Amino acid sequence: MAPASKDVFTVHHRVTEADRARANGHRGGILWFTGLSGAGKSTLAIELEKALFGRGYRVYTLDGDNVRQGLSADLGFSPEDRTENIRRIGEVAALFAEAGMIVITAFISPYRADRERIRARHPGYFSEIFINAPLEVCEARDKKGLYRRARAGEVKEFTGVSAPYEAPLAPEVEVRTDLSGVEACLAQLLQYVDRTLRLPAAEGAGLRGPQQAGG
Amino acid sequence: MAPASKDVFTVHHRVTEADRARANGHRGGILWFTGLSGAGKSTLAIELEKALFGRGYRVYTLDGDNVRQGLSADLGFSPEDRTENIRRIGEVAALFAEAGMIVITAFISPYRADRERIRARHPGYFSEIFINAPLEVCEARDKKGLYRRARAGEVKEFTGVSAPYEAPLAPEVEVRTDLSGVEACLAQLLQYVDRTLRLPAAEGAGLRGPQQAGG
Repeated sequence: MAPASKDVFTVHHRVTEADRARANGHRGGILWFTGLSGAGKSTLAIELEKALFGRGYRVYTLDGDNVRQGLSADLGFSPEDRTENIRRIGEVAALFAEAGMIVITAFISPYRADRERIRARHPGYFSEIFINAPLEVCEARDKKGLYRRARAGEVKEFTGVSAPYEAPLAPEVEVRTDLSGVEACLAQLLQYVDRTLRLPAAEGAGLRGPQQAGG
Repeated sequence: MAPASKDVFTVHHRVTEADRARANGHRGGILWFTGLSGAGKSTLAIELEKALFGRGYRVYTLDGDNVRQGLSADLGFSPEDRTENIRRIGEVAALFAEAGMIVITAFISPYRADRERIRARHPGYFSEIFINAPLEVCEARDKKGLYRRARAGEVKEFTGVSAPYEAPLAPEVEVRTDLSGVEACLAQLLQYVDRTLRLPAAEGAGLRGPQQAGG
């Protein structure tokens, strides 16, 4: 999208992404979780955040809790509002990645076009992580009672019931939470991050747990 | 603002702000720069970012460059759009602060009510930094030629010329860029950050320049 005015001048940051990566021992990036409600996005996001932080990564999670009540508090759940919500999250996630952080986004983000738009805008950062479990498994879990309410017509436009979910065609990682436990899923995600975002020790400061950082 | 739906459940982050502060050696916070075009916001933001990064702080700058072309690309410069732009920046800045970072925001942000709304929503994070130079000084600098164009009527609703600027009533810091040079202004800002956001060495990992972080 073009800026709404030409009266915006590009200012160059003196701290480069390479500087940040060297200091952190890893590059910034977006781990874009997508999947049905109940597939395990929030659980895995929180566990992954904890595990990465413990290994010295700079990491933060964007989820419904910290986005829907703030940045997107003016938006509802219509298709248009969902698209705008996902657009904003994509832009914010890219800012975090530019700031050198690994940002995990935990949103259903049901529309393929919305996700592909973010990938196209931020190709160096974007990794699509499909948190996958069949609808019947997610519905059987129904921790929040949302599927029951959706079937009863109390929740409108609910993904998988009364609104579509468009699965990723070529995600960087697919995690099957119906076939593997949390620990195995987590190991799969950690391996991906280590492989794609971690700097070789020779290039960066190296990663340590925060407890060792006081020396 | 209330969320647009009740179907948002609070998820607790396992990594607490205290954890992040201990690892970083400092708390997260928002350094909200406000002031006329040409007052020196962008220059000081970039210099402060560089200086803080060099001292081991986790810091990032939000400015017109990285916000207006992305998150707020759908917004123009009408009073309503400016207010929405500033609202979004406030929410994003609070996310960065929650992630443990110091975020510098460099926007004119001319309306007092807009700034006070952010302060009220995020009182633990928000510091208002008035980058102050008289209009005639800013207009004489006119690095971007914007004042000239505004006086010629080529730029509409230009703050200080054809749109109001409401100065802070009680900013945490006031920097007079017409009376002090960049180094002196920077020293004033660094002192404020050290005093308010830095953790005592006993509580945090301590701050080091990134070049010493490899040991």
